[in-house]
Amino acid sequence: MSSQVRRVGIVAKRGLTAAAEHLTSLDAWLHERRIPIVYESNTAALTGSARGDVRADVDVPTDVDLVIVLGGDGTLLSAATCIARAGRDVPILGVNFGSLGFLTEIRIDELFTALDGVLRGTAAFDRRTMLNAEGVRDGAVFDARIVLNDVVFTKAALSRMIGLSVSVSGGFVTKVKADGLIIATATGSTAYNLAAGGPIMHPLVDALVLTPIAPHTLTNRPVVIPGDAVVEVRPHVTGNEDEIYVTYDGQSGYALKEGDVVRVRKSPHALRLVKAEARSYYELLREKLKWGERGGRD
Amino acid sequence: MSSQVRRVGIVAKRGLTAAAEHLTSLDAWLHERRIPIVYESNTAALTGSARGDVRADVDVPTDVDLVIVLGGDGTLLSAATCIARAGRDVPILGVNFGSLGFLTEIRIDELFTALDGVLRGTAAFDRRTMLNAEGVRDGAVFDARIVLNDVVFTKAALSRMIGLSVSVSGGFVTKVKADGLIIATATGSTAYNLAAGGPIMHPLVDALVLTPIAPHTLTNRPVVIPGDAVVEVRPHVTGNEDEIYVTYDGQSGYALKEGDVVRVRKSPHALRLVKAEARSYYELLREKLKWGERGGRD
Amino acid sequence: MSSQVRRVGIVAKRGLTAAAEHLTSLDAWLHERRIPIVYESNTAALTGSARGDVRADVDVPTDVDLVIVLGGDGTLLSAATCIARAGRDVPILGVNFGSLGFLTEIRIDELFTALDGVLRGTAAFDRRTMLNAEGVRDGAVFDARIVLNDVVFTKAALSRMIGLSVSVSGGFVTKVKADGLIIATATGSTAYNLAAGGPIMHPLVDALVLTPIAPHTLTNRPVVIPGDAVVEVRPHVTGNEDEIYVTYDGQSGYALKEGDVVRVRKSPHALRLVKAEARSYYELLREKLKWGERGGRD
Amino acid sequence: MSSQVRRVGIVAKRGLTAAAEHLTSLDAWLHERRIPIVYESNTAALTGSARGDVRADVDVPTDVDLVIVLGGDGTLLSAATCIARAGRDVPILGVNFGSLGFLTEIRIDELFTALDGVLRGTAAFDRRTMLNAEGVRDGAVFDARIVLNDVVFTKAALSRMIGLSVSVSGGFVTKVKADGLIIATATGSTAYNLAAGGPIMHPLVDALVLTPIAPHTLTNRPVVIPGDAVVEVRPHVTGNEDEIYVTYDGQSGYALKEGDVVRVRKSPHALRLVKAEARSYYELLREKLKWGERGGRD
Repeated sequence: MSSQVRRVGIVAKRGLTAAAEHLTSLDAWLHERRIPIVYESNTAALTGSARGDVRADVDVPTDVDLVIVLGGDGTLLSAATCIARAGRDVPILGVNFGSLGFLTEIRIDELFTALDGVLRGTAAFDRRTMLNAEGVRDGAVFDARIVLNDVVFTKAALSRMIGLSVSVSGGFVTKVKADGLIIATATGSTAYNLAAGGPIMHPLVDALVLTPIAPHTLTNRPVVIPGDAVVEVRPHVTGNEDEIYVTYDGQSGYALKEGDVVRVRKSPHALRLVKAEARSYYELLREKLKWGERGGRD
Repeated sequence: MSSQVRRVGIVAKRGLTAAAEHLTSLDAWLHERRIPIVYESNTAALTGSARGDVRADVDVPTDVDLVIVLGGDGTLLSAATCIARAGRDVPILGVNFGSLGFLTEIRIDELFTALDGVLRGTAAFDRRTMLNAEGVRDGAVFDARIVLNDVVFTKAALSRMIGLSVSVSGGFVTKVKADGLIIATATGSTAYNLAAGGPIMHPLVDALVLTPIAPHTLTNRPVVIPGDAVVEVRPHVTGNEDEIYVTYDGQSGYALKEGDVVRVRKSPHALRLVKAEARSYYELLREKLKWGERGGRD
Repeated sequence: MSSQVRRVGIVAKRGLTAAAEHLTSLDAWLHERRIPIVYESNTAALTGSARGDVRADVDVPTDVDLVIVLGGDGTLLSAATCIARAGRDVPILGVNFGSLGFLTEIRIDELFTALDGVLRGTAAFDRRTMLNAEGVRDGAVFDARIVLNDVVFTKAALSRMIGLSVSVSGGFVTKVKADGLIIATATGSTAYNLAAGGPIMHPLVDALVLTPIAPHTLTNRPVVIPGDAVVEVRPHVTGNEDEIYVTYDGQSGYALKEGDVVRVRKSPHALRLVKAEARSYYELLREKLKWGERGGRD
Repeated sequence: MSSQVRRVGIVAKRGLTAAAEHLTSLDAWLHERRIPIVYESNTAALTGSARGDVRADVDVPTDVDLVIVLGGDGTLLSAATCIARAGRDVPILGVNFGSLGFLTEIRIDELFTALDGVLRGTAAFDRRTMLNAEGVRDGAVFDARIVLNDVVFTKAALSRMIGLSVSVSGGFVTKVKADGLIIATATGSTAYNLAAGGPIMHPLVDALVLTPIAPHTLTNRPVVIPGDAVVEVRPHVTGNEDEIYVTYDGQSGYALKEGDVVRVRKSPHALRLVKAEARSYYELLREKLKWGERGGRD
């Protein structure tokens, strides 16, 4: 893969001043190897001496062969969906600042080793499923998204419960009466899904999980479904009191109307993530969920 | 207690036409015993021949010695808080239509037996704790409520998590990062609290339960605290994205601002509820939660 | 597939006298179509007029082209593991008596329609993953099983907690301190796993789930892992007090010693199950878990 | 209270050599104040220079005015039940070694301050409910215990489920089909109960909690009942496979037979525990359950 990395994009979390010195080192390291850099504009502003091409008009440079993300899981998630929306298949190398992330699993002191692996073609990549989500109103698709973590249906703050009819691959599953419903990928299983009582899913499991949030029916438990399933959710909107919202990756969303359908299925695009040599998925779980420590009965 | 029931108030669930014939019988039964009736106005409209005093200006007649509620738990809950707000101590006899309620535990065919017990002074009463909840802004109480079930803090639909600092009787408990937080009475423990993973509490347990909704920290579990505790909740409102709402008994509420405090403690008013002779609290649990049936592994 | 069903095996749940009349009809129906029958001996005893070959020496006839099971999920589970142990690939048609089963999903009144579909070659089959489980002691395999539902590690009745080291495909996952640990297939996900808080998994999901039972560490949550994973569990046996047991499909098992390893991976054998035309997996869930009914907050 | 502490008992966890130097200081400190000491024999052995009376024949000296426990929650729990069995009402001062305990909430460097508070009569005490548990067979009480944490009913290792009929104060509650059932005090709520999904209960809540372990019926949720309730549990023992055990405080127990009843109610004896001035119950929760740290979604 070595010869394929002809250009590298760099994105840092907005306002992450701690990244400045590392951006300078990274700029020098790539310059030395004669690899051109494309900076997202806010990232360029973090370092005075950036020698790369600076793009002010895009969030994430996608016409590159690798994107390096410095920040947290949120920044990487945005970069991944940008790349997928651009119809590109650019791998991402995610570096965390502060605590380890489930996506940004490479520590800053491991950056150059990991980067070297990518350039030499020895790095391993995880392939993470992404989802296409379509909002359908009056028979027409009015909104289309690509998500990495989850599609979430929620109630308005002052209402107590919402009703959602859920079908999978054409077959009716159930009418959920709850605070909401999460449709999560394996990657998203450790995000909101975990807080709502859903299971952890290894990134290589080809499945989605449907997890109700505070369900009215106590036997409504999380259901893991095949990765190639098509999930359709129809909101029951009975009045102003019952407004129902859909959110994508916890970043944006909108209110649904009676008659709307949200259709979710696996995207042809996947996130290609550079793996940290130093640690496995289970090590991440142990560290993030503090499995070594007590946090319970003694 | 016989001589004390000199006047009876009657409230039916709005639009509950199935109650009409029973209202007529009830009207006749009380008339025969020369006990004057006060009707809430919508209830009077359900029966053409009402002989009682009709009140159009109040939700629930409170200047009576007993209120009969025909409907569901929601109707009884409203009646109970009306009576408490009026500073009165009128017992309620709750009759359910359709499925048994946790509050309306008397079936329509048990109505006259139960009523007879009240008139003769042989009926048993449950005493249910109610809560006073005060909203404090800029150092002054700007809102005061009496609730029977719960005080609930929730996030806006499009935000992912809220932060709440919780203290009990002056001591800091924790900062909850979650979808929300429920402060429930024993009565409210089988409502929203149960859906959010909280325990069932027998009505005679003198305690409150603090139950986080989908907490970020997986070890943040429901905590049962003494009934005489004073709970204070302070929202962390960091921007538009983070709007935090408080709702009372799932019926009304408002947005909170940074610096606000919501203070919750046991009310001097309690709900006095006529008990069904025919069934215990545990029977209600078995019936409502379908404990006799499987609904699980086989 | 029509021509392939040359001989049919029949097994009824031991002592299921309600099956007698249906066995007689089934015997006649198959006899009319000149299809020889092989009866498990207890099953033959349930009907006086059996015309088939009766096998007293085996639990389940495996030298046939189809096995019909009359009874419940337990009977089908035993038949499935018998067939797999015999190294055969015989499909099973499961008929429930009484309530629907997750495996015996065909009702008695649907039997002949389903059977006709199998003979004509129009029936659909589910392919359910089975697991090979090996007990290794002093470096040698001393026990080998095929299971359909789950491999479960549990504590002795009087001990409070056990310790288990779990690795997946060579990588250490965690040391579980709990009442026990369940390794379940998708089929087994609705059995013990569900009671212990694990997720429901659709039968076509190629995955296993590791679910701790009452874990000491509250963040030890169920983990769904790829179906081709090799799970190794090592018990920490520190004394008499700490006895640790392994059970297979809830039917048999034994105590483990310090140094033992139990190795679990997907079996080359799978259960081929005749599907009911009349209902989907989600219908089964709705019926078995009573999703249409309340069983919760109202 | 100053004048009442005329004699102090001291018990250290068996084999806790780290306690030796502190035992020496403690011996000197009390000697200087002319307060006689009674040592449990193993504890005396930990320090060579003990000046106190050494008792080899008892686990815990009970004819004293204060017992100091050095060790963990298990050691304190044993001491508390010994004192209650002796019909005495001696307060306990619990010092932890290593991590904070829910009972041993005083750190070694706070020992003398706390002790000084007890001698001066300024110390605060928590009153922790204890339970009397009676085993009844053939109409006669054959076993009687005092417990501080919990009475637990469990299945044998190789069986899958047990059945228990539960009644409270004479009224039938439900038939539990589960791995087991926990009856916990507020003190015991943070022990096994928490691992099984039960709520945390503040020590001053006058209530018990009934928590099923991995219940078959998914709507069988923990139930908090009044502290003065009498709980009766009747095992359904249908054969050898179904053996059912009861354990007390996780320390000892026995198998139950069909027809047996275990009756649990509040003991007239309570544990009087010296409170740490330095920290509240909620601080203990934060520290023990790591509420400050993530251990969840990020």
